[in-house]
Amino acid sequence: MCTEKKGYMHKAIEQSVLSVENGGGPFGAVIVKNGEIIAKAANSVTQTNDPTAHAEVNAIRLASSKLNTFDLSGCEIYTSCEPCPMCLGAIYWARIDKIYYGNTKQDAKNIGFDDSFIYDELELPLEKRKIKTTQLERKKAQEAFNNWQLKEDKIEY
Amino acid sequence: MCTEKKGYMHKAIEQSVLSVENGGGPFGAVIVKNGEIIAKAANSVTQTNDPTAHAEVNAIRLASSKLNTFDLSGCEIYTSCEPCPMCLGAIYWARIDKIYYGNTKQDAKNIGFDDSFIYDELELPLEKRKIKTTQLERKKAQEAFNNWQLKEDKIEY
Repeated sequence: MCTEKKGYMHKAIEQSVLSVENGGGPFGAVIVKNGEIIAKAANSVTQTNDPTAHAEVNAIRLASSKLNTFDLSGCEIYTSCEPCPMCLGAIYWARIDKIYYGNTKQDAKNIGFDDSFIYDELELPLEKRKIKTTQLERKKAQEAFNNWQLKEDKIEY
Repeated sequence: MCTEKKGYMHKAIEQSVLSVENGGGPFGAVIVKNGEIIAKAANSVTQTNDPTAHAEVNAIRLASSKLNTFDLSGCEIYTSCEPCPMCLGAIYWARIDKIYYGNTKQDAKNIGFDDSFIYDELELPLEKRKIKTTQLERKKAQEAFNNWQLKEDKIEY
C-alpha cells in the first residue's frame, strides 16, 4: 500500500489517540478528496451527548458541510476502525468511493464496543431482534410517499 | 394496537408529509418517553446538505440533546418508515427500547430509496461489497485501543 494512503490512515489514527486523551471514544476518521484531507474527526458521543457522533459520521458531516453537498462521490474515508452498521450506512448514503480501516470490528468487540452485535441483529428478521419492532398505520404512512412521487420539483438523493 | 400508539405514529407521519411540502425527503419520526413526545423530526438531507440527516437520526439527536444524555433507554421511536441500516444502528447505539414503523423498506424501494441495497451490502463479506474496503496499518491503529483499555477515568457508552 502506498505511503500516501498510510499517511492518511496515520491522521485518522492520530484523531483516535487524541480522542482518548480528550475523554472521547478511541476512534478517528479522515475524508480525502483529490489528495486533500477535507475533514478529520474523532468520536464525540460522550462529550456531545450524541449517540450518533461516531468518528465516521462526524467526518461525513464536516466534509458535506465543507463541500456544501450531501453527495461525497469522489471521496475516500480512512477510519481507525472498521465502521459499525450505522457508520457503514452513512458511508453508503454519502456515496463515498472507498473505505480504508485499521482495527477490525473484532478488535472493537475485544475492548467493549460490540459493533458485531448490531451487525448480527440487522441480519435477523424483525421479529427475532432484541429491540421489539412493530408495524403500525402503514396505509396512513403512504401519504407522504404518494406525495413524494407526485412532486415534480423534488430533490432526489 | 392502542389509540395512544397510533396517535404517536400519526405525529411521525405528519412530519413526513410536512417534509415533502418543505422540500425534504418523505420521512418523519418522533421519540416518546413516559408518554410524552420529547422529539419530532423529519428527514433534512437535501436542505442541510447532511447525508446522515435522516428523520430517525435527527430525532435521536434532538432527544439526546433535550435529555442531556447519549442513553435513550426507556424511549420508543415511531418512524413513518422502517429504518435503514444507518438509522437502525443509531437506534441500537441510543439504546431505544422499541421501534414502531409505518411503511416498509420495500415501500421505500418502490419510490426510489434503496435501503434494501444497503441491507444486502452489509450482509456481504468486505471483499464482495460495492464500496472497495481495504485494511491498513492495524498494528498502529491499536494504540488508541490500548490507551482506552488502560484509561481509568473513561466514560463508557
